[in-house]
Amino acid sequence: MFKILKTEGRARRGEFHTPHGTVQTPVFMNVGTSAAIKGGVSSVDLKDLKCQVELCNTYHLHLRPGDGVVAELGGLHKFMNWDRPILTDSGGFQVFSLASIRKIKEEGVSFQSHIDGQKIFMGPEESMRIQSNLASTIAMAFDECADSTLPKEYFKESVARTERWLERCKTELARLNKTAINKEQMLFGINQGGVYDDIRIENMKKIAKLDLPGYAIGGLAVGETAEEMYHILDVTLPFAPENKPRYLMGVGTPTNIIEGVARGIDFFDCVMPSRNARHGHLFTSNGIINIMNLKYQTDTSPIDPNCSCPTCRNHSRAYVRHLLKAGEMLGMRLAVIHNLYFYNQLTENIRTALEEGRFEEFRKIYSPLLSKRI
Amino acid sequence: MFKILKTEGRARRGEFHTPHGTVQTPVFMNVGTSAAIKGGVSSVDLKDLKCQVELCNTYHLHLRPGDGVVAELGGLHKFMNWDRPILTDSGGFQVFSLASIRKIKEEGVSFQSHIDGQKIFMGPEESMRIQSNLASTIAMAFDECADSTLPKEYFKESVARTERWLERCKTELARLNKTAINKEQMLFGINQGGVYDDIRIENMKKIAKLDLPGYAIGGLAVGETAEEMYHILDVTLPFAPENKPRYLMGVGTPTNIIEGVARGIDFFDCVMPSRNARHGHLFTSNGIINIMNLKYQTDTSPIDPNCSCPTCRNHSRAYVRHLLKAGEMLGMRLAVIHNLYFYNQLTENIRTALEEGRFEEFRKIYSPLLSKRI
Ligand SMILES: [Zn+2]
Ligand SMILES: [Zn+2]
Repeated sequence: MFKILKTEGRARRGEFHTPHGTVQTPVFMNVGTSAAIKGGVSSVDLKDLKCQVELCNTYHLHLRPGDGVVAELGGLHKFMNWDRPILTDSGGFQVFSLASIRKIKEEGVSFQSHIDGQKIFMGPEESMRIQSNLASTIAMAFDECADSTLPKEYFKESVARTERWLERCKTELARLNKTAINKEQMLFGINQGGVYDDIRIENMKKIAKLDLPGYAIGGLAVGETAEEMYHILDVTLPFAPENKPRYLMGVGTPTNIIEGVARGIDFFDCVMPSRNARHGHLFTSNGIINIMNLKYQTDTSPIDPNCSCPTCRNHSRAYVRHLLKAGEMLGMRLAVIHNLYFYNQLTENIRTALEEGRFEEFRKIYSPLLSKRI
Repeated sequence: MFKILKTEGRARRGEFHTPHGTVQTPVFMNVGTSAAIKGGVSSVDLKDLKCQVELCNTYHLHLRPGDGVVAELGGLHKFMNWDRPILTDSGGFQVFSLASIRKIKEEGVSFQSHIDGQKIFMGPEESMRIQSNLASTIAMAFDECADSTLPKEYFKESVARTERWLERCKTELARLNKTAINKEQMLFGINQGGVYDDIRIENMKKIAKLDLPGYAIGGLAVGETAEEMYHILDVTLPFAPENKPRYLMGVGTPTNIIEGVARGIDFFDCVMPSRNARHGHLFTSNGIINIMNLKYQTDTSPIDPNCSCPTCRNHSRAYVRHLLKAGEMLGMRLAVIHNLYFYNQLTENIRTALEEGRFEEFRKIYSPLLSKRI
């Protein structure tokens, strides 16, 4: 399913074949939490933004509109009108961050909905059933995403449980796939272990044996430094299967992405482009600008003169700034469109650099430049 | 400038020529208050929605970003990236509805900004200067939009003052046009007089003599019944110049528009399509639906099977409903897109009916049907 076309150091240029089309990697997945990108961006718009994979959140869709409703409508692809690959997360991250009064047992987790307080139980089987109803291209394993400040003893127990959960996920999804909307739904395993090298490595060795279609590194970008994160990648990825895609969950800045690729990561996702856009922090090929600054009030140039996104093709900095200041939804939309396009274009540029054997050169210039505030 | 192509009863099918292109009438203008349509709809989107004229609010743009900023950027057309006609209101309506602690004198009105409480003075000259800076195609006269429950004596004084203001508007705009961004900016006069036939008629006779490029009926749709509004049109319009376009300000429902056309109105504007959309009230060729109703939860049909808007071409009722329920901006955008298109398509259908001499037939079917809640 995954084919490595070229490498440079540990960086990989690949192709991931799925029933919903081929993904060119490295790839940045665009986050559409509740089956929609924040900022009023539709799946039709995403095609103009060079998006290859849309990521949706299992937890949110389970609560609203309900995965049963989505299944009745033929799955997420039909629901959102998006025919390219979709990745659903497991719900685990939200259960551990958004929901309250949770109880973790061997079976799974009890929690209360952040919307209406409804009591819900989710374990590996429940997560697989929901994701099977959503009918995404890639389902993520149900894992515990533990607070990285917890002691090593906690992580040992937690990771062991998450390993047992992964086997249950694999068994349940294989069973579900026999009658599912998407009979070829794939399962990605998730490596955990906080900032503890030995736990991370042992865990990766173990889950690699399950021969899953892909592997993710979870539990990073949750408060540790970038250096700690890069270190975990450095020590863990050598034990991930070479011929399977690797997904760094929830990461990150343009610099993080370049550095992740340099360490052998193929998939990324992050809410940063849309969240930053709403606050007027816009990515450009020269660094990050704050469009709210007074100096942009009468600036007729596009957000980034080197950008070909629909916003930069049609609107000025002055106009986008005005809209955001006035609290107009259109301001959010135009800013989100630009930032998403920037991220998707960034990974395209990374792929081209890899193809042309000049990724290290690209990295040297852009890794420091793109996260600079100007 | 205005050419009547065909009439049926008092209804008119016309063409209004402007430096920014020709407007086919009857026309519904789309309201972009702060130089943007509410719901994240851009001027680029408007072209897909059959919008002919965008209406912007002088009061809002004067406060933010400031008409001086817009002028520095080359006027509203460049600012919004919209090359078709733009109509700006005078600011009067907002001064009398949004602003506080106002004082009306012969010179104009003192009020406080609803944004930051800043003290501002606006009279006919100020309104013209602001609109000249905005460089719209059509500027509206500065008028007092008095509460229709006020006594007749109040209206006599108010309308007399508004007549004097209109002459000052005309003089000031002629002076400004000599050096303006848009040297051909046009002035529309506004008929006022509450629900008092004789005041309305006398006012219309007087302002008709000024030979302005167009005339509006103001101060309606502010609480009086539809029958009272239609009555005012019936008695007042016979005194409006035949060969000038007539604009019914802030109106209204699809039924109001059909009935306005039947009485000789050519221009309309209303926030109803976007405001209703945000609450899930969607117009269809069979009446108004509330998309929030449970029966649409798994409805895969488009909002209106007879609609060709971008929302109906791509998305289901179930999806739009989910997005609005989840508070996703995309839900607002898709709903607003549909409702605006519906209004623009409605006036296109009215024009076709007029061309084919079957407007009365059209009116009999659709005047009762389109405002029915189903
Ligand atoms: Zn851009
Ligand atoms: Zn539609």
